[in-house]
Amino acid sequence: MKSTGKSVIAGNAAYVRPIDFKKGRVEMGHGGGGRMTMQLIDTLFLTAFDNDILRQMNDQACFSVPAGRMVMSTDSHVVSPLFFPGGDIGSLSVNGTINDVAMSGARPHYLSASFILEEGFPLSDLKRIVESMAKAAHSAGVPIITGDTKVVEKGKGDGVFITTTGVGSVPDGIHISSELARPGDKILLSGTLGDHGIAILSLRENLTFHTSVQSDTAALHELVASMIQAVPAIHVLRDPTRGGLATALNEIARQSGVGIKLREDKLPIHEQVRAACEFLGFDPLYVANEGKLIAICEPELADKLLQTMRASPLGRDAAIIGEVIADPHCFVQMETIFGGQRVVDWLSGEQLPRIC
Amino acid sequence: MKSTGKSVIAGNAAYVRPIDFKKGRVEMGHGGGGRMTMQLIDTLFLTAFDNDILRQMNDQACFSVPAGRMVMSTDSHVVSPLFFPGGDIGSLSVNGTINDVAMSGARPHYLSASFILEEGFPLSDLKRIVESMAKAAHSAGVPIITGDTKVVEKGKGDGVFITTTGVGSVPDGIHISSELARPGDKILLSGTLGDHGIAILSLRENLTFHTSVQSDTAALHELVASMIQAVPAIHVLRDPTRGGLATALNEIARQSGVGIKLREDKLPIHEQVRAACEFLGFDPLYVANEGKLIAICEPELADKLLQTMRASPLGRDAAIIGEVIADPHCFVQMETIFGGQRVVDWLSGEQLPRIC
Repeated sequence: MKSTGKSVIAGNAAYVRPIDFKKGRVEMGHGGGGRMTMQLIDTLFLTAFDNDILRQMNDQACFSVPAGRMVMSTDSHVVSPLFFPGGDIGSLSVNGTINDVAMSGARPHYLSASFILEEGFPLSDLKRIVESMAKAAHSAGVPIITGDTKVVEKGKGDGVFITTTGVGSVPDGIHISSELARPGDKILLSGTLGDHGIAILSLRENLTFHTSVQSDTAALHELVASMIQAVPAIHVLRDPTRGGLATALNEIARQSGVGIKLREDKLPIHEQVRAACEFLGFDPLYVANEGKLIAICEPELADKLLQTMRASPLGRDAAIIGEVIADPHCFVQMETIFGGQRVVDWLSGEQLPRIC
Repeated sequence: MKSTGKSVIAGNAAYVRPIDFKKGRVEMGHGGGGRMTMQLIDTLFLTAFDNDILRQMNDQACFSVPAGRMVMSTDSHVVSPLFFPGGDIGSLSVNGTINDVAMSGARPHYLSASFILEEGFPLSDLKRIVESMAKAAHSAGVPIITGDTKVVEKGKGDGVFITTTGVGSVPDGIHISSELARPGDKILLSGTLGDHGIAILSLRENLTFHTSVQSDTAALHELVASMIQAVPAIHVLRDPTRGGLATALNEIARQSGVGIKLREDKLPIHEQVRAACEFLGFDPLYVANEGKLIAICEPELADKLLQTMRASPLGRDAAIIGEVIADPHCFVQMETIFGGQRVVDWLSGEQLPRIC
């Protein structure tokens, strides 16, 4: 029942004219639920995301699960600009939700994707984004099995917003959660800080600054799978996205009721990112990452976990960056390169709007 | 670890000033992922949606499931205006996704909710919407267990968009899907047509027309549960939302490879809705519903199913409105009140933009 490419179905749902993916633009009718919506689904989404469950074309997707613990995570993506060095809103929306599911130790199974399109948005850009999503989902082995498309009038949106939701299942015996950090635990980071945020900044209007830094957007579930195989007793996993490492660690400290002590000299940061941050007045601790994770475990297991992370391409720059301490105020502190101490506070306000 | 109301936490995550839910407005920082985002989550979302799973405050929610078939469904809600007679975007976004899950025969278990807020949106309106969502979720017994909040600049969104995703599990022995309609089957409709669309229209700008019609937004999962208990062999369930009854029946006809014959004299339509449609030139077959369902089953079971539906408050106006016929062209036809025949085609273009 599925059409491909520019074919036109006879009878029920005959399409008056094929969609022009070169020069065409999103029209209100693409979100009306009628013939134009069906045509867009047929020729774009079904063709790109093609899989057995999606092809059932019910208003919901049906799949089998084993008994046990499942996780669910959702994220709306409003990144601007839509295309940036190393990725686009499509790959970001797939990888971001896969990572949120994986940070519980779960194996991600399926994604849903819901689009809010702005009238007038070029269909060629939409096609490029959808194909990028499809590629990211295929490469991660996590299919997009259901979705929705809405259209808002020109000036009531901003090109395209994508909300992805993921489900996955947690292996038996794995208990990873942000309230499980304990004093004495070591804190590991899987790689360099701030690459995504600086890649986005490099494109923002009114910035004459240019760099070759690429977004680190990547799906981390295979790295996580290898980590929990080596060290099933990991206490906490978290991906430091919006608000950066500082915010993620403050959240963990607050939820676990502990303090955290970082060592600045151990933080992996690309030279270009460090230079860009100095030039622009940004602190790399607060700049967003989209392909990095924090792991916290007992000190005796930290070296084994570190070696496992470094054996993966997505963890080759991994480092032990600090430790968990007892602190009733739940502060995150950092020993600076110069031997001083500073408090690493929550992000106040908005440093980099629409980073993801 | 959760603050309530206007309390201010000491130490980690101390809030500089309480959120003003009377005169305050959404700021970019509410989507920054830092202190302001955390404060909004604490004082609004956690307080309203309060449940054990959400309170874990990980980037994903963890829950137990029995082995078997699960379903997942997602919908972005962009309805305009945000508040309308009988509901608002909050209750609509909860009920709409519960219904999409339930149309597989599944019992909905959990929802996620992701918000895209426009800078400058009144926090009092956001609070009203979130509390309406919480009330709808609580009343349906389907908790909101995880979510996300993003903020876009003024003029890049339209107040608030809400994407909800639902998961549920299908009881053993239930196989309901849009490709299972068979010639001879009877088509049942749970109640009156067009109430939601006309309620929205009554508020749209530039329309001087007024009516007392209320949106029919409602969660249908309890009705579905009683229907599948009485008639486990239901072939198809579908809620005729965007594009109305005409579009839903065309989708079913196409997916099942059958034709459909409706009887106009059997269609339940409120007098006010009929009058409004005549006045405005709308066809009630294409007007959206948010609390109605189509059921298709073998003719011998139709009376039992009809009686079961009528015994529920949400199905008291249920009627048998037509039957499935053999037709290689998969057309939907209607016998009119005057004894004529007309083809009920797909919705072309956009009749009522941003209806849900």
